[in-house]
Amino acid sequence: MLNAKEAVAKIIREKEEVGGVKQVYYVGCGGSYAAFYPAKTFMEKEAKELKSALYSSNEFVHNAPKALGANSVVVVVSHKGNTPETIEAARISREAGAAVIGLTWLLDSPLVQHCDYVLSYTFGDDKDIAGEKTIVGLLTAVELLQQTEGYEHYEAFMDGIGRIDRIVKNACEQVKHRAQAFADSYKDDKVIYTMGSGAAWGAAYLESICIFMEMQWIHSACIHTGEFFHGPFEITDKETPFVIQLSEGSTRALDERALKFLNTYGKRIEVLDAKEMGLSTIDASVVDYFNHSLFNNVYPVYNKALAEIRQHPLTTRRYMWKVEY
Amino acid sequence: MLNAKEAVAKIIREKEEVGGVKQVYYVGCGGSYAAFYPAKTFMEKEAKELKSALYSSNEFVHNAPKALGANSVVVVVSHKGNTPETIEAARISREAGAAVIGLTWLLDSPLVQHCDYVLSYTFGDDKDIAGEKTIVGLLTAVELLQQTEGYEHYEAFMDGIGRIDRIVKNACEQVKHRAQAFADSYKDDKVIYTMGSGAAWGAAYLESICIFMEMQWIHSACIHTGEFFHGPFEITDKETPFVIQLSEGSTRALDERALKFLNTYGKRIEVLDAKEMGLSTIDASVVDYFNHSLFNNVYPVYNKALAEIRQHPLTTRRYMWKVEY
Repeated sequence: MLNAKEAVAKIIREKEEVGGVKQVYYVGCGGSYAAFYPAKTFMEKEAKELKSALYSSNEFVHNAPKALGANSVVVVVSHKGNTPETIEAARISREAGAAVIGLTWLLDSPLVQHCDYVLSYTFGDDKDIAGEKTIVGLLTAVELLQQTEGYEHYEAFMDGIGRIDRIVKNACEQVKHRAQAFADSYKDDKVIYTMGSGAAWGAAYLESICIFMEMQWIHSACIHTGEFFHGPFEITDKETPFVIQLSEGSTRALDERALKFLNTYGKRIEVLDAKEMGLSTIDASVVDYFNHSLFNNVYPVYNKALAEIRQHPLTTRRYMWKVEY
Repeated sequence: MLNAKEAVAKIIREKEEVGGVKQVYYVGCGGSYAAFYPAKTFMEKEAKELKSALYSSNEFVHNAPKALGANSVVVVVSHKGNTPETIEAARISREAGAAVIGLTWLLDSPLVQHCDYVLSYTFGDDKDIAGEKTIVGLLTAVELLQQTEGYEHYEAFMDGIGRIDRIVKNACEQVKHRAQAFADSYKDDKVIYTMGSGAAWGAAYLESICIFMEMQWIHSACIHTGEFFHGPFEITDKETPFVIQLSEGSTRALDERALKFLNTYGKRIEVLDAKEMGLSTIDASVVDYFNHSLFNNVYPVYNKALAEIRQHPLTTRRYMWKVEY
């Protein structure tokens, strides 16, 4: 099986005869959509020529961009390779002449037959963080840029990949006690907000929709720390709980401003600080893109403690896989 | 003062000597961010070459795309022209050599001095819907496309603009009674979700963050109807209220699927149906982009009724304009 670098190289060679790669679309649902958020922000910030966008799969299927065609690369992700909307997104993309890269954990899945290249990723308790779907998604973006326009921080990015696993595993140890305290304090709450910005916004989104809403049936919303002051902050009081990410990198100032406000007018605030958790050892030119992997792996320490104390296992569902929808 | 078409024409002429317009960025905060959502989806779907993105202003300021420069157009919006992050976004854009179009209601405002072209829009109770900021934002996108790559549905779009005012005003009459019933039924709720998709997602986002959270201090989140089945739908029960938009156009199937689920497993559901409200008289090729203007003007009928019955005026704030932040 090819890796991201090799798959991208083959696509770029194949696309030469039709004028090269001009657009890249990232497509997935829910947690997979969130996992591609860093790739979206990477392309949006770093690419000078390549067009890009991130779509929830069914939006892509029903509202596909008119540029989708022979000059496009579509990167899809489905954990078990069986999400119908994502399979359909891959199918229509290939039909339109795009090259399709599929990320999936289960290599023997329906998604695979609609992809030109399949990339696997690590998953589970002892996974290598550097091989997770978020990083593999990012690598498709980094390689697409590097192998077309060039990416000036390519070496720094690869160096970051070499560091992320240790940083994350140390951080998970570091938060164990505070995760337990969080679970004790928040176990009876009916609403918990998450907050974040930049490339890490997707981690806050995932925690909100896939954990609090889906796995704990707690009301939730994900608030962008820059948007907070333009509406949502009026909800702040001494009772309402917020989990806020302080990213390391470009948008930290946004997160710090929101935290300062929360510390003044709120009371029940849980802070995930990427700097305190050691992310700053990754070069400043690329650190933005590693926040997601850190937060997204630290949250489960909190989630496990919360599920246990609430006696609401993270696997409990009332609708998913149980009813028709 | 120039209109959108004239301003875009001048910019395109000016940019000829540096290689033309290659990127367009939409930048605003909160309700203004939401108002640009249709323009974002328009560019994302219709443009084959032009790069585009939508940013919350402070994210743009701290995390500006590297492509920002002489080939860029930046369209900013601030209702009173005094939002510091948006002013700063305009300032750095001009400094980078971009052409800046500023949308504002107050023409004598700090924003104006950082813009190359200023566009005004209609506002207030009897405004012409065709002149609102959402439509003016869309027009900058439509004109940028038409005057560069060309836009095959340009005439249909202009025809839609000629129809939207009457459709919206009829719809506002049409929902008066149900808005009152909504207010009666939902007045004591602590959480209300909004849902939408496609170009209209921004209207659901605005209702969630600017009305329920900001103006009524009701907990809320905006759920994409395509994402609903990948996490959020587990929150559904007979008690939890949802306001769901059924858009007319490409993504209606997503909204209908979510509504079908809600009708089966939920109970407290308020439906805003663009088809029922007469939006289908606008041509199918462009109707997607007019859903926002419809929903965004129908919501206030509900909001007024809700605020009155809750005795919580829409102007009430505890932080905005009152404390430092």
